[in-house]
Amino acid sequence: LNRAIVSTCLTLLALAAHAAGDPESGKTKAAACATCHGEDGKSPMAIYPKLAGQNEPYLAYALKTYRANQRKGSQASLMTAIAVVLSDQDIDDLAAYYAGLKP
Amino acid sequence: LNRAIVSTCLTLLALAAHAAGDPESGKTKAAACATCHGEDGKSPMAIYPKLAGQNEPYLAYALKTYRANQRKGSQASLMTAIAVVLSDQDIDDLAAYYAGLKP
Repeated sequence: LNRAIVSTCLTLLALAAHAAGDPESGKTKAAACATCHGEDGKSPMAIYPKLAGQNEPYLAYALKTYRANQRKGSQASLMTAIAVVLSDQDIDDLAAYYAGLKP
Repeated sequence: LNRAIVSTCLTLLALAAHAAGDPESGKTKAAACATCHGEDGKSPMAIYPKLAGQNEPYLAYALKTYRANQRKGSQASLMTAIAVVLSDQDIDDLAAYYAGLKP
């Protein structure tokens, strides 16, 4: 039973590790985001949202809804075009990167 | 000519004043937002975005896309239900209120 518990815990830890984004990878992948959202996640254009310090799960959610073409506002098609090439891991990395920046 | 310039400027100033939201009114109108986005605009639930200090034009844009039912993510229908009763002035007031809060 102890072995089973340890094994289950290791599996859960592995899943948790997989689910977490890597902010260092996210920083590299964020090159395409900087023009509109700023190098530091503080968007120079006020029609675009600041991303620095935003909640990580919300950032991942928002990117996934853009990727799924579920956002249709006038600013959305550019975001969908960018998000459509992103993997789940890319999205988790980007979310971890921006969530970790100082607002 | 000077009079025409002054008149034009006054008209533009009036338009700008109309376009600007009133953060005090926004605070009152934000009662429906606090459960998910926090009293201070710092959402207690990480799946929802922090609003405190977000760019004012983006906040207004986001509310208007929800109101127009242009966002279809799994979290969007609640926001659309809330936004659909808001006037443009309500939205400008809410955007001014949240943009003015400390991140």
